[in-house]
Amino acid sequence: MLSRLARLATVHETYPVDAFLLTHPPTIRHLSGYFFNFETGPSPFHLLPAALIALPGSDACLIAADTETGQIATLPPPLEIKLYESYVYERPLDFARQFQIRLHEMITQFGLSKACLGVELKALPVLVQQELSNAFPDIRLVDVSKEVEQLRLSKDPDELEMIQKAVHLCDVGQETLLKEARPGISELELFSCVRTAMEAEAGRRFPLMADFVSGPRTGEAGGGPTNRIIETGELILSDLTPCLDGYWGDTCQTMVVGKPSSIQQTMFQRVKEALHLGIQAIRPGVKASAIDQLMRDHLAGLGTYSHHSGHGVGVVYHEEPRIVPYNDLELSPYMVVALEPGIYRDNQGVRLEHVAVVTENGCELLSRFQHRLTAD
Amino acid sequence: MLSRLARLATVHETYPVDAFLLTHPPTIRHLSGYFFNFETGPSPFHLLPAALIALPGSDACLIAADTETGQIATLPPPLEIKLYESYVYERPLDFARQFQIRLHEMITQFGLSKACLGVELKALPVLVQQELSNAFPDIRLVDVSKEVEQLRLSKDPDELEMIQKAVHLCDVGQETLLKEARPGISELELFSCVRTAMEAEAGRRFPLMADFVSGPRTGEAGGGPTNRIIETGELILSDLTPCLDGYWGDTCQTMVVGKPSSIQQTMFQRVKEALHLGIQAIRPGVKASAIDQLMRDHLAGLGTYSHHSGHGVGVVYHEEPRIVPYNDLELSPYMVVALEPGIYRDNQGVRLEHVAVVTENGCELLSRFQHRLTAD
Repeated sequence: MLSRLARLATVHETYPVDAFLLTHPPTIRHLSGYFFNFETGPSPFHLLPAALIALPGSDACLIAADTETGQIATLPPPLEIKLYESYVYERPLDFARQFQIRLHEMITQFGLSKACLGVELKALPVLVQQELSNAFPDIRLVDVSKEVEQLRLSKDPDELEMIQKAVHLCDVGQETLLKEARPGISELELFSCVRTAMEAEAGRRFPLMADFVSGPRTGEAGGGPTNRIIETGELILSDLTPCLDGYWGDTCQTMVVGKPSSIQQTMFQRVKEALHLGIQAIRPGVKASAIDQLMRDHLAGLGTYSHHSGHGVGVVYHEEPRIVPYNDLELSPYMVVALEPGIYRDNQGVRLEHVAVVTENGCELLSRFQHRLTAD
Repeated sequence: MLSRLARLATVHETYPVDAFLLTHPPTIRHLSGYFFNFETGPSPFHLLPAALIALPGSDACLIAADTETGQIATLPPPLEIKLYESYVYERPLDFARQFQIRLHEMITQFGLSKACLGVELKALPVLVQQELSNAFPDIRLVDVSKEVEQLRLSKDPDELEMIQKAVHLCDVGQETLLKEARPGISELELFSCVRTAMEAEAGRRFPLMADFVSGPRTGEAGGGPTNRIIETGELILSDLTPCLDGYWGDTCQTMVVGKPSSIQQTMFQRVKEALHLGIQAIRPGVKASAIDQLMRDHLAGLGTYSHHSGHGVGVVYHEEPRIVPYNDLELSPYMVVALEPGIYRDNQGVRLEHVAVVTENGCELLSRFQHRLTAD
């Protein structure tokens, strides 16, 4: 974690700011380890989930709500934590003011009252900026959003471990899908089996984005589970994207309940080949666009997909490297890439997805699940 | 919906702004009907979930991502919808710019290039404000957050219907809890039964905040379900807070698996009495603080609770009227109030919660579930 904070020095080379005031939640997770669970929406008792103040190469401080002590207890000790009063019932709520007071205290403590601050303008509320300007009229702000995002491209060992854990939950979910799928079960019931197995593995709830559709709905590529009853011979498409402590996993499986038709077998086989080709091609120096083209070309004639061929995975579920036609970004070691080619035609869809980490001379799969068209 | 937009006129009386530019998601749900599902976090393809531009007493326009057409199709027709390009894979992502272009187009179309705009500074990114100022240097901004929030206090018939639907999901969940609770089941398994029944009733997934704890964990008042196995004679505390299309429901039930002890019976009975006293006291003109005191006083001696006695429910799960000691706000018709007294002592906790709407001369319960200490 500390090593990542230190890496802000590279942003400092481009923008010689005096300090960073970072407020974009994925940035905060990435640099400080703090994750605010967004699953039930923004808290009505927070102005922001948190704020991170970091001096290039030295001190850093996280400002967070005093209701978040459970999460904060797990953060590495060198990071200074400043809590502000958030939820109270004995007197009127004053969390916005309390947050600003802490922020201004830290600006003073770090000697930043006339500083140039690197910020993320997209994630900084005008309210915070105005009160900062009122208190410290000489402070200037520089947008460093893009440069800070760049720091996330290659993953550290602890990040790979986090992503591996999230991807493992996908593996558990997809195995459960194969085991529990049967004619007569509803999409929601089947999804519930899958999610329950994943939660039991994690020992708790976590945010879970999912495409979970059956029959003709697979032809639309995605959507949430409904009360639709799954019939013999129908496809089930299960794209599971869990977020464990702020890091995402992501795999997709497609299967048939009962005996697959000839076209289902062909679609599955070709998509599996495309995915395999893509994985084989992953290595340092290869362009994202080349992997995209390889997989699209392999499916040409049989069908197509009007979405990306893949994407990076980390503290955001879709991030660089985007595996898309225009992207000439070259892969490099410790990037994490999800590949997900698909075919959608005649009210049927097949998509298969694996997650891999780029290594020195190829890649290593983080997802262990083996795609199978049927449970047998 | 239109009637609520028209109600911005009352804010206009205090702040004679030329128009409103509103970006706080609960405000947008309340005034326009548009709800961005936050369950998997902010979209990596949005600068903001949406923006609402409204002229006092006349036109209004919602700016939203072109990926959100499903939700937008259900909005009432008088609202103008402007979509911007959000997710693309054929060329680089440009959603932030596309959003700003739409926003600036609407500012021009509505003749607001030198306007005074009522905004929510806490929910307006500096990036949006800066580009607005660059394009229209004569625009001025006035913070109307508090006044816009005030508009949400009393609910319209369509809002009561939405809350009723969300509360109905709570009823389904609590009945399922009573039916499925048994010794040897884990908190997560039991929670999964409860959630699956709620989702089947809704026909889809929805955000669900929940305290779901058993045994000694009930003494801590809350927390998420874990792999903890529930044993005979233990309490289960189930606080279910679902969000259906942007409106929240909220009820809490506490029960025992097996035969309840004498202290469990006493705690349950007293909390039930406190809740009943609170509900009986709800009527127009009564102060929120009076209801708080009534319930706390009834439990004095046996135990206490270090949280609010209740809260408003709507597009935010905890809102005014807060039922807390300091709040002398008087209840008035069509406010929606959740009451949730509790006792936590000696590693055991009981909390019971109902939701009621204030009527002309009392209140009407929106939650139909009958609290029972055991399934028999």
